Amino acid sequence: MLVNEMMDKDFIVVSPDDDLIDVSILMEKKLRFTTPVVDEKKKLIGWITSLDVTRGFREGKKKVKDVMYAKEDIVHVQKDDPARLAVMEASKYKVFNIPVINDEDVVVGVVRAFDIVKTLSSLYEVKVYKIFEAMNEELKGVSWDELMEASAIVTRRRTGKRVTAQDYEKRIKNSTFGEAIWATGGLEKFFVGLIAIGELVIARKVAKARK
Amino acid sequence: MLVNEMMDKDFIVVSPDDDLIDVSILMEKKLRFTTPVVDEKKKLIGWITSLDVTRGFREGKKKVKDVMYAKEDIVHVQKDDPARLAVMEASKYKVFNIPVINDEDVVVGVVRAFDIVKTLSSLYEVKVYKIFEAMNEELKGVSWDELMEASAIVTRRRTGKRVTAQDYEKRIKNSTFGEAIWATGGLEKFFVGLIAIGELVIARKVAKARK
Repeated sequence: MLVNEMMDKDFIVVSPDDDLIDVSILMEKKLRFTTPVVDEKKKLIGWITSLDVTRGFREGKKKVKDVMYAKEDIVHVQKDDPARLAVMEASKYKVFNIPVINDEDVVVGVVRAFDIVKTLSSLYEVKVYKIFEAMNEELKGVSWDELMEASAIVTRRRTGKRVTAQDYEKRIKNSTFGEAIWATGGLEKFFVGLIAIGELVIARKVAKARK
Repeated sequence: MLVNEMMDKDFIVVSPDDDLIDVSILMEKKLRFTTPVVDEKKKLIGWITSLDVTRGFREGKKKVKDVMYAKEDIVHVQKDDPARLAVMEASKYKVFNIPVINDEDVVVGVVRAFDIVKTLSSLYEVKVYKIFEAMNEELKGVSWDELMEASAIVTRRRTGKRVTAQDYEKRIKNSTFGEAIWATGGLEKFFVGLIAIGELVIARKVAKARK
């Protein structure tokens, strides 16, 4: 995924000579705490936040250029950068918004922290059931019931709790990948559980074939 | 993971009767675009953003209570809520910050979108190598070299590209879970690939045992 696919395209921009009062009205109306500052060719030259505006108001400043940050002092990404880069920059620099530019430095979007949250969390919301369906399809010659039975056996062995195949099926229908990795104690452990199930189901398939 | 473990504890709070000018200075100094409004017992009663401050300044408002949102109009979470809930709220309501309260409605923290980004992205940064190490440990009687060999075979079958066990090992040492799921086309596909590898490695183990 590229930055381009995750960014807000309904962004606002302001110019260095814009009046701070007009800018504050625009930012409030569009609910933007930050906005890129651009030149007449829409190239990124700076950044302004609503905290710079409040300071400007208090200190009697009139124009965007009186309170803005220079481009050199802010984080920005390219539209064709991997989305992962914007995620890491937001996390590292603790910024809520990152301007996105193209090859000519023109601002083409803004990546917002909650857009990142949305993208990342969609992964967490994948139903565990979907992973088992994919697993079932991959393991030729293993029925869904056999898979659930093996899953229940592995769960009993690992947790010591009585779990039937029906319980297990119900559980994975209701739980998400995010819940599962938190419940099992991490990605590796979650996956190891799947491998253990896969191993058992294959061993049983082999044993059945020998009979 | 609970909200409590992901929230910012170094937050600021303001009172309804606080002077807007003082509040703006505090918000700028602590770089907070939003802040909870609390009563004398530190209970959550509202919310103020720097955009409310700019509007207040323009309109000649003096106090926090003149521009703040009421508690009913904002999103908040409990400190013992699952972190997942805060993630979903931030994503759904497109908010950068969510106040966190305890059983007595007292504000005990603020969840910030970039804290969520940090937490979520840590999962993406898990090295694929770590997953294979866990897999190798789970599959008793299968050596690391056998696992890499099976991985290379599955990759060749699926992509048609020539990949050796050495290439494969190098690749997983350098790539993260996030890159891998983007490269394979999603979580389910990534897992299916691993299951295919697990299946092959087990089949080869069984074949070897029969000899």
